[in-house]
Amino acid sequence: MDKVKVGLLGSTGLVGQVFVKLLDKHPWFSLEVLSASPGNAGRKYGDAVHWIMDTPLSRETSEKKLVPAEPEYFKDVDIVFSALPSSVAGEVEARFARSGLVVVSNARPFRLDPDVPLLIPEINWDHIRLAERQSGTRGYEGRIIKNPNCSTAILSLSLKPLLDIFGLKRVTVTTLQALSGAGYRGGVPSLDILDNVLPYIKGEEEKLESEPLKILGRMSGSRVEPAGFKVNATATRVPTLHGHLESVTVETAEKPTGEEELVEAWKDYRWPGEIKRLPTAPSDPVIVRAEDDRPQPRLDRDSGKGMSVVVGRVKIKEPGVARYLVLGHNLVRGAAGNAVLIGELYAKYYGLL
Amino acid sequence: MDKVKVGLLGSTGLVGQVFVKLLDKHPWFSLEVLSASPGNAGRKYGDAVHWIMDTPLSRETSEKKLVPAEPEYFKDVDIVFSALPSSVAGEVEARFARSGLVVVSNARPFRLDPDVPLLIPEINWDHIRLAERQSGTRGYEGRIIKNPNCSTAILSLSLKPLLDIFGLKRVTVTTLQALSGAGYRGGVPSLDILDNVLPYIKGEEEKLESEPLKILGRMSGSRVEPAGFKVNATATRVPTLHGHLESVTVETAEKPTGEEELVEAWKDYRWPGEIKRLPTAPSDPVIVRAEDDRPQPRLDRDSGKGMSVVVGRVKIKEPGVARYLVLGHNLVRGAAGNAVLIGELYAKYYGLL
Amino acid sequence: MDKVKVGLLGSTGLVGQVFVKLLDKHPWFSLEVLSASPGNAGRKYGDAVHWIMDTPLSRETSEKKLVPAEPEYFKDVDIVFSALPSSVAGEVEARFARSGLVVVSNARPFRLDPDVPLLIPEINWDHIRLAERQSGTRGYEGRIIKNPNCSTAILSLSLKPLLDIFGLKRVTVTTLQALSGAGYRGGVPSLDILDNVLPYIKGEEEKLESEPLKILGRMSGSRVEPAGFKVNATATRVPTLHGHLESVTVETAEKPTGEEELVEAWKDYRWPGEIKRLPTAPSDPVIVRAEDDRPQPRLDRDSGKGMSVVVGRVKIKEPGVARYLVLGHNLVRGAAGNAVLIGELYAKYYGLL
Amino acid sequence: MDKVKVGLLGSTGLVGQVFVKLLDKHPWFSLEVLSASPGNAGRKYGDAVHWIMDTPLSRETSEKKLVPAEPEYFKDVDIVFSALPSSVAGEVEARFARSGLVVVSNARPFRLDPDVPLLIPEINWDHIRLAERQSGTRGYEGRIIKNPNCSTAILSLSLKPLLDIFGLKRVTVTTLQALSGAGYRGGVPSLDILDNVLPYIKGEEEKLESEPLKILGRMSGSRVEPAGFKVNATATRVPTLHGHLESVTVETAEKPTGEEELVEAWKDYRWPGEIKRLPTAPSDPVIVRAEDDRPQPRLDRDSGKGMSVVVGRVKIKEPGVARYLVLGHNLVRGAAGNAVLIGELYAKYYGLL
Repeated sequence: MDKVKVGLLGSTGLVGQVFVKLLDKHPWFSLEVLSASPGNAGRKYGDAVHWIMDTPLSRETSEKKLVPAEPEYFKDVDIVFSALPSSVAGEVEARFARSGLVVVSNARPFRLDPDVPLLIPEINWDHIRLAERQSGTRGYEGRIIKNPNCSTAILSLSLKPLLDIFGLKRVTVTTLQALSGAGYRGGVPSLDILDNVLPYIKGEEEKLESEPLKILGRMSGSRVEPAGFKVNATATRVPTLHGHLESVTVETAEKPTGEEELVEAWKDYRWPGEIKRLPTAPSDPVIVRAEDDRPQPRLDRDSGKGMSVVVGRVKIKEPGVARYLVLGHNLVRGAAGNAVLIGELYAKYYGLL
Repeated sequence: MDKVKVGLLGSTGLVGQVFVKLLDKHPWFSLEVLSASPGNAGRKYGDAVHWIMDTPLSRETSEKKLVPAEPEYFKDVDIVFSALPSSVAGEVEARFARSGLVVVSNARPFRLDPDVPLLIPEINWDHIRLAERQSGTRGYEGRIIKNPNCSTAILSLSLKPLLDIFGLKRVTVTTLQALSGAGYRGGVPSLDILDNVLPYIKGEEEKLESEPLKILGRMSGSRVEPAGFKVNATATRVPTLHGHLESVTVETAEKPTGEEELVEAWKDYRWPGEIKRLPTAPSDPVIVRAEDDRPQPRLDRDSGKGMSVVVGRVKIKEPGVARYLVLGHNLVRGAAGNAVLIGELYAKYYGLL
Repeated sequence: MDKVKVGLLGSTGLVGQVFVKLLDKHPWFSLEVLSASPGNAGRKYGDAVHWIMDTPLSRETSEKKLVPAEPEYFKDVDIVFSALPSSVAGEVEARFARSGLVVVSNARPFRLDPDVPLLIPEINWDHIRLAERQSGTRGYEGRIIKNPNCSTAILSLSLKPLLDIFGLKRVTVTTLQALSGAGYRGGVPSLDILDNVLPYIKGEEEKLESEPLKILGRMSGSRVEPAGFKVNATATRVPTLHGHLESVTVETAEKPTGEEELVEAWKDYRWPGEIKRLPTAPSDPVIVRAEDDRPQPRLDRDSGKGMSVVVGRVKIKEPGVARYLVLGHNLVRGAAGNAVLIGELYAKYYGLL
Repeated sequence: MDKVKVGLLGSTGLVGQVFVKLLDKHPWFSLEVLSASPGNAGRKYGDAVHWIMDTPLSRETSEKKLVPAEPEYFKDVDIVFSALPSSVAGEVEARFARSGLVVVSNARPFRLDPDVPLLIPEINWDHIRLAERQSGTRGYEGRIIKNPNCSTAILSLSLKPLLDIFGLKRVTVTTLQALSGAGYRGGVPSLDILDNVLPYIKGEEEKLESEPLKILGRMSGSRVEPAGFKVNATATRVPTLHGHLESVTVETAEKPTGEEELVEAWKDYRWPGEIKRLPTAPSDPVIVRAEDDRPQPRLDRDSGKGMSVVVGRVKIKEPGVARYLVLGHNLVRGAAGNAVLIGELYAKYYGLL
């Protein structure tokens, strides 16, 4: 089988590096083109990047010359992944889509637009069709498909079985988010976070309160009917490297009879088989642990190679009010890993293989 | 004025050390007797303690000989503070009370008993009278008065103005608790918490779900009518030294018209003047900060010398549903500081000065 | 090939868990018997252990019943690895050796005894013969072979090429040691080390100042002639999980002409080929990195699966005085990994395969 | 007494904030003028600064309007303290000195110039006269006086008594430096340092190897004869907030007979009385602690309000070779505190009071 050629926008940042790590040995994709900011274009990737992944960079990718973020350099690839910062992503990605390229992006802009799929493949792979409207609505020859906010992706996976089985009325969530969610050099200064918690992450609560409703919404004709519950979110930053932990209280429409019924809802949930067979999909999108003291960021963030979320401490607090904690790897399921999974879905759905 | 003689049970542990620090230069109290575990009795305090406070230990206290936790050694003191571990506190404190001593204790046992005051003086100083029943109910010649759980004390202070002004229906709280809440040597191993969060603290959620209802309850005759709302709590441990941060969502009976009305509720609240004049009472039991990124454990835990709690990020999420974060020093307001304040209240109320 | 049957003393502690992880899928060894403290004997390993490794425990080992640390339970195994705490290791290991068992131990007792091999196989595999004297000197039917102190193992590997090529006169070393070197539950309390460094590790400097001289000594007849240089050591504990970093200043007999000559000494060193072919041996026992800011504990500790040490920041400070930093994984090269390598050496040398 | 009017260059950064904290309530100095980078000039200090000190900012200073770093705004002050970054300090400070202003600066440029005093007042207050030559050598109407590098200041204080009493031949030092030494926002990213040590600090070793020789040198006519020993330095960054810890091995000319003789050298040293009477001078510039496990950054950095350095773990390793650890507050003794002390010395010596 010939590999599908892919490119990457914003390859030297933290999320960019995770993309490189995942694409370097990908069974379906061949990473052909990498862009960087103007100052680094023309340099070899290995020279321009301050590589901080825990696996070594492949020699082949290390030797690749970085290109500017211009469509002409990407014209031979089938999928362009984007790890651009949100401040520039909107303009660049639109330019790419107009010129005929398919962009699978981790950046914020367009996520809530009605003709833009916001995908967690296990939950709403069928929303991918939304993007077909972009030729009409935007005059794009290509398409833009979006990856959700990191905390949202983790939360939404845990909510899906509950929504389907019990119905959801209200979700109250407090996140304890890891440092890598804020990026590397421009991220959290060490003096701010040692022996400390930051009780605020700009824009995060708004994303958590809106994105899950679209993701968990239902295709109705050519649009998404948003899910009908309310999310109240509080976002904090804690001194962990990776792995967002979330304390979730849900009010359900049906009242589970006990914690066992909730645990079964997750354990027995039938995730779509066609997604499970994609290379980056984990065998269990949601893992439930029975121990009192799990999930823990350091011990559980790599579950399912970072693509599973881990649920624990399930407790019914009142009839119809349940509490649990959920943890996921913010850079993998919450960013590059989920985006690569979207790329795989796209390649399969539209027959690129 | 002659100082009131006081004693201390469990003086070498972490909470014990904070008691010593606060009592060492107290304007009303003179710390006369300190107990330690059997192995340390007979040694000088300065030799037995592994002092980790940030202020030096006074020479006078350092030279004091430790005594066993037996009432006979305390017969000349008017108030006995207890920093005993909960595993032994029940039996020892009961023995002290039976032999005529007044015990103000930080330990868990008896907190929910109907004849035992569970006090945050600014909130419910009048509950102190409950203890007068103990001669009848228990045959005590002395009394036992209790300090609440640390997270509870911090939460309850922030809830009091809301309860009085808007009424409370339900409180959903997730705590991010500091390491010192677990004690020193037997506390959290460093390998458990570096680059990690522990999603569980044994017994903590049960305390948070029960104690506030008693504290915020109303004296009715000789008993307390518990407050009529529900608390759903999740407790986590984060890598901070001191200062418990709590993410709180409240459902109120009356609907505040906006965040300003909530902020005013805290700012304009009239805390009882007689408590404000006690030496350890802060001028503001609740401080509200307007910045987006406060309260922070490291920056705010020493507010009001550790006796104020700091509220921030006040937000109305839905009509009648408000969110805020509150922070307090777990060893001061959440333990020794609040207990010393109870001691001052006792001394004033019962005329020991 | 039939696997060599091995046992493990002290299997539930931190070093014990690393042994289990390394032996669980070992190509030569089959882990048959595991002991634990009396309270845990009879329980299944998976129930007794608080497993904190980052890879899951195998089902097979999880189901094994723990036995007491008595020779009778180990009589069918060929090698017994010991992760016992030093306080009990001496007595137990002697008992095992007397009853005919071969013990490869990570514990302190006997390390400096003249008839006990203290091995880093790449450096001094030939010292293994020392143990043959134990039947005469101690009346053992079995043998005791020792693994060095963790910081010592890392330092000694970096010193070996320098000793051989330039000769050593004096080594001044300051260690920055990770938390896992102190063990798990009885180890460093989190309150001691967050935002802190501990300038003292009991017994560590003495080990660093004596053990390398034996390891780097030369077999002369049936005894070891210790190496003839001086080590001055300072040991500190820093807030890292794993990976001891050491700042080393060496005074050499010959004066290298420049940093390149030093780097070549490490890079071109011919480690014994027979050791390189053992399953746990790394392809490069010493890796030299050219970047200014390496080695770093978190980024480099897993080099060579934890069996390589990483050298960096090589600098000639004065003629004949050179400085470098070296890092190694304290639980792997500094403990269980090196011990397993010793086991492999034993099996090969004495034809157990 | 009228206060001496002083100004501050670079007031919003981390060192700038410590200057403000120290000058806000200074008994001799009145902080009149504060500069900031062009973008902040014109704003109130309280609006422009992201205040992260642990004491509140005074209202008076908070209300001050920031000025550009131009001499005309400072013409009414007698001493200008400088917390400018080294990249701009050289040019700005020279301009200030040319226009007649006395600049006491924490920045690197000019530190090693022969006509520039590099002062730790307790050690070399008499070097202050060097600056009188600047009118001749540079045509300055004002003067530039320099504060040493942070690690250097701490090390040099500990060396002074040893140099005077035993003579020094060689000093081998490894530093474990705190995060605040690298500044706040442009400092160490949290992702670099959590669970990690950085084995490199740009330029630091060179400073440690040169500055102490000037500081500990002797005035000879109008120039400084540098001290005649060698320093070999290794600098690392560890995850502590404040407080640089240094592991020091000294080779002395005279051989102390035991650790007691070394300890007495520090304890009995006669620091110059005129310096001790300056307001910011600590009563003990060097404190020696006898405990095995001290000094520790978190417990000892505030000794003497951050102006004392703390020595511990004194050990004679060989005849004439001694090892100790020394700790000091990098922002106070290592930066703003020492500079304020220099300002006090200047005011006293040149009769500004």
